[in-house]
Amino acid sequence: MKRTSRDIRTANRYEVLRQIIAASPTSRQELAAATGLSLATVATLVGELLDLRMITEVGFEDSAGGRPRGLVAVNASGGALIGVDIAETYVHVELFDLALNVLARAEEDVRPGESLPEQVVAHVASAVGSVVAQAGVEGSRVLGVGVSVPGQVDRATGTSEYAPNWDWHEVPLLDLLTEHIAYPLYLDNPLRASAVAELWFGAARGRGDAVVVNLGTGVGAGLVLGGALHRGVSNSAGEWGHTTIVLDGRLCRCGRNGCVEAYVGASGIMLTLRELSADSALLHPEDQTATIAALARGVEAGDPVALKALRDTVRYLGAGIADLVNLFNPEVVVLSSWVATALGEPLVAQVREAVARHALPRPMAATEIVLSPIPTDPVCLGAATFALEGALRSVGQRQHKRSRTAPPS
Amino acid sequence: MKRTSRDIRTANRYEVLRQIIAASPTSRQELAAATGLSLATVATLVGELLDLRMITEVGFEDSAGGRPRGLVAVNASGGALIGVDIAETYVHVELFDLALNVLARAEEDVRPGESLPEQVVAHVASAVGSVVAQAGVEGSRVLGVGVSVPGQVDRATGTSEYAPNWDWHEVPLLDLLTEHIAYPLYLDNPLRASAVAELWFGAARGRGDAVVVNLGTGVGAGLVLGGALHRGVSNSAGEWGHTTIVLDGRLCRCGRNGCVEAYVGASGIMLTLRELSADSALLHPEDQTATIAALARGVEAGDPVALKALRDTVRYLGAGIADLVNLFNPEVVVLSSWVATALGEPLVAQVREAVARHALPRPMAATEIVLSPIPTDPVCLGAATFALEGALRSVGQRQHKRSRTAPPS
Repeated sequence: MKRTSRDIRTANRYEVLRQIIAASPTSRQELAAATGLSLATVATLVGELLDLRMITEVGFEDSAGGRPRGLVAVNASGGALIGVDIAETYVHVELFDLALNVLARAEEDVRPGESLPEQVVAHVASAVGSVVAQAGVEGSRVLGVGVSVPGQVDRATGTSEYAPNWDWHEVPLLDLLTEHIAYPLYLDNPLRASAVAELWFGAARGRGDAVVVNLGTGVGAGLVLGGALHRGVSNSAGEWGHTTIVLDGRLCRCGRNGCVEAYVGASGIMLTLRELSADSALLHPEDQTATIAALARGVEAGDPVALKALRDTVRYLGAGIADLVNLFNPEVVVLSSWVATALGEPLVAQVREAVARHALPRPMAATEIVLSPIPTDPVCLGAATFALEGALRSVGQRQHKRSRTAPPS
Repeated sequence: MKRTSRDIRTANRYEVLRQIIAASPTSRQELAAATGLSLATVATLVGELLDLRMITEVGFEDSAGGRPRGLVAVNASGGALIGVDIAETYVHVELFDLALNVLARAEEDVRPGESLPEQVVAHVASAVGSVVAQAGVEGSRVLGVGVSVPGQVDRATGTSEYAPNWDWHEVPLLDLLTEHIAYPLYLDNPLRASAVAELWFGAARGRGDAVVVNLGTGVGAGLVLGGALHRGVSNSAGEWGHTTIVLDGRLCRCGRNGCVEAYVGASGIMLTLRELSADSALLHPEDQTATIAALARGVEAGDPVALKALRDTVRYLGAGIADLVNLFNPEVVVLSSWVATALGEPLVAQVREAVARHALPRPMAATEIVLSPIPTDPVCLGAATFALEGALRSVGQRQHKRSRTAPPS
């Protein structure tokens, strides 16, 4: 989509709050230096955030020879945000304060055969009710609920267009959720949730161009381009899991052949293990999480099958990530989601070498490859961040209206 | 790179001029409607362009019941722009007026063994001198010269970091050119030149997200994202030709295996033909242009080897373009450069079918696939456009300085 001056104003509002959350207390002068915005712009944006009680004045600091500078800090208790991570086998919900500390958590299992939209929605509603009750937060203080659901999502209509794990098509998820949840709702998918989490709180903070590689059951790339999320024209950019790495290769669950996901998604890694050693003790049939955990332990213990399975996986992963480096020329590639977390630094070290073999030298030289530094569920955090962004956007619109009825003198 | 308010102002200045060039004469009101900018912003930008004599007032039109509206049009003779397309076997130079009509052309052959930087620079200098003389334009009216050179380019230092066809490394091309050419110079590569040509004058005009696929000797993708060129952090985004489509596949001239370019670049297509029929009459050894032209004629005549070679090429091309659709979710994919032009609509029709087989339905549904509608050399046009953008940028800076010394009352 084309970007307008209004998008830039919204992005600046995000960036000032992001910086305050990262470095409270702080002064307007420090914020201007950190964000590159003018002091006048920062002062306006800080004024808006103070009006919203998202931040507060917390005293003064001396400035060498000048007037004392006012300090502001995030007002952690100024509101609550809820992030919902709907995954294939569970619904995970976290409630955050405005400093994005987790105040409460709830998890519900989604058992096989319980994946009708109404059943999943009931789990979400129950978990959201639970975190609000646990945290003892008044309903009026909940600024919004961000919901991540796998697959293709139409944000404008709140529809899950296609969820491959449950074969959902055109499910009006936001309408269904609205029947149970009274807070403002924001729908998107895990690729974008984890990308926005890195942009606000992780390895993409302050970076113009970043790619967040999600390695889980599903596989994809969240894209930060020009300092903002790249969604594409119908909110479906980043489907790296379904780019072709081996023409006419392994069958993918999307029905096509040779997709990246067929080799480096959790099922793909299990298939690689099975091909190497059908009776390997590392294999826990029907349990991806246990298998990947066993693989990680095997790698640590020097088990030859585990080492070979990791090496084979990295052969595909390295080529696939090199494609992202060659295409986007990012400052950083962040490895996120549970398979990346489980395999950890041994994975990252091998990926760095493999990407360097495939990528062109110039974009490679400009790119760091790191594990996500976010210690909690990045999808919950990112979903909650969508709710925070939504609150900041609607605020701007309200203020805009107000200023039209009462123009400044 | 992160985008700032200043980038947006510059982009708005580009967009207003773009619209005036496309639809002269036009009114400020029509420009506001076409660009989505406010009438006040359009009036300011039109004022700047009038000051620059890039546009002129050309009378009034009646508006229903209101005051007559002033009309503006591009001032074609208000300046000249030069575009230079350095390719493997030729240097092609065109001189344009401000309506981007071609006023003069020159071409010099670059023979094998004549590809030292100094030799290529001498060809460029000679051809630039020739077009200025042919057009009878005063030197002071030349606003700038855009130069496209294949490979990786560092715009900031004016260096050709790596040109694969001649194995150039770290050539200070802009310094060398400055010794012979007195006009402002702007260096970039053909991917970005053809993308900016589509953005200003072709199939990406008015689109937020577009991918310009270059099919020539080299292969790559120029990226228009969020309404502007995406360069990446070191100006090397878009190296689609060196993404992997067949892991461990054909050797590519970049030294790696299985790259898209190894199958769909001109040499790759020749190799496919040779593999199908080593003594095919379509093959002109050492002459890519003649071979691709013969292939195009063969396809038209229903020659079975030609049809099979096209089908095999499209098998790779369809998967590779589907990767771009899945990753970027663009509004339009434009096929550009000489191989695409030569193979024309039969290629595009087959590519559309092949991409639809590989891409996910949601991004596919949002994407058009078209041949470049630009009738002249898009790389020359894009290079000249870099010079136009450079003139518009430096103008903004001059005006900015002026307004600081004499603030508006």
